[in-house]
Amino acid sequence: MPAPRSDRARVATLDAALALLAETPYPRITMEAIAARAGVSKATLYRWWRSKGAVVVEALAEQNRSADLHALPDTGDLLADLSAVLRAIVDELADPRHDALLRALNVETLQDAELRGQVLETIFRPQLRAFTARFASAREREQIAADVDDLEAMELVVAPIFHRWQQGTAPLTHGYADGVARRAVRGISGS
Amino acid sequence: MPAPRSDRARVATLDAALALLAETPYPRITMEAIAARAGVSKATLYRWWRSKGAVVVEALAEQNRSADLHALPDTGDLLADLSAVLRAIVDELADPRHDALLRALNVETLQDAELRGQVLETIFRPQLRAFTARFASAREREQIAADVDDLEAMELVVAPIFHRWQQGTAPLTHGYADGVARRAVRGISGS
Repeated sequence: MPAPRSDRARVATLDAALALLAETPYPRITMEAIAARAGVSKATLYRWWRSKGAVVVEALAEQNRSADLHALPDTGDLLADLSAVLRAIVDELADPRHDALLRALNVETLQDAELRGQVLETIFRPQLRAFTARFASAREREQIAADVDDLEAMELVVAPIFHRWQQGTAPLTHGYADGVARRAVRGISGS
Repeated sequence: MPAPRSDRARVATLDAALALLAETPYPRITMEAIAARAGVSKATLYRWWRSKGAVVVEALAEQNRSADLHALPDTGDLLADLSAVLRAIVDELADPRHDALLRALNVETLQDAELRGQVLETIFRPQLRAFTARFASAREREQIAADVDDLEAMELVVAPIFHRWQQGTAPLTHGYADGVARRAVRGISGS
């Protein structure tokens, strides 16, 4: 077991990773550059994180957590709220910097089961918890079938967006986001 | 424009690529190995294909085409037919060799827009045409809403499977395939 990380060095490292991400395409970022920017030694960095991907994913997870990016709107209108969420994802994916970062991270997680696990626990699970909170309110209004669990519902809602983004099957528009929300809400409802 | 490829050399190259894929993990296959196996020069190979990915994708597309792998069952029961298709995809993804190949190809297409376009045209479009044929029959029975196009319908059906496979959110089972088919059929239907 490595010794507990000093909080100051940890914060400096995660800040350095985010600062580099804002300036440099992911593939060109190195552990050396993160260490230099954070003012810690490379040995220290490798004692706490096994790879650049592990640092970056922890930095992104921390950023999401601080920004509370995950809260979903709850106007009472499930379709409108999910449309808004999917439109926001579409906007994010249209940003070339975000697109490039997400492609690069997917390249790493496709090849690295441990990093995939880290993304799942620290980025995906908090997102799922936000959907779960919104779905709980929808369940009270009987808008979701009892035999559909929250993960199944979330995957029906978000997967078509990421599929179209990754495979480039057709333009990723707000209209598509609205249509996916409409079909997914119909799919997860009991009717 | 390169000269038309000799058919014999083309067939030999694609056969060599498939033979190597059956023996060797994708990342360890090289253009040299494909050329040697096919009995063509490396220069010839590079005249016709710009990368290993381009050869492999053409070989896989050709294999799909010969095997007519894309035909969808049509029993008249859309839900049963789509469940069968999704269960078959789940079985394929559970094969470690297929899993590894698809991960490797996704790693390449995420970073290479030209290869992504080749996969789209030669592998994805034929699959979409097979879904389109099945959906045409479902549309005659008014099982699909008029405002849902075939690509939108197909993406709702298949995307959750590939999302769960790629992100590892939960086990990819026949039960999940059945549930996705059920929710997607509800989602694309007009009811």
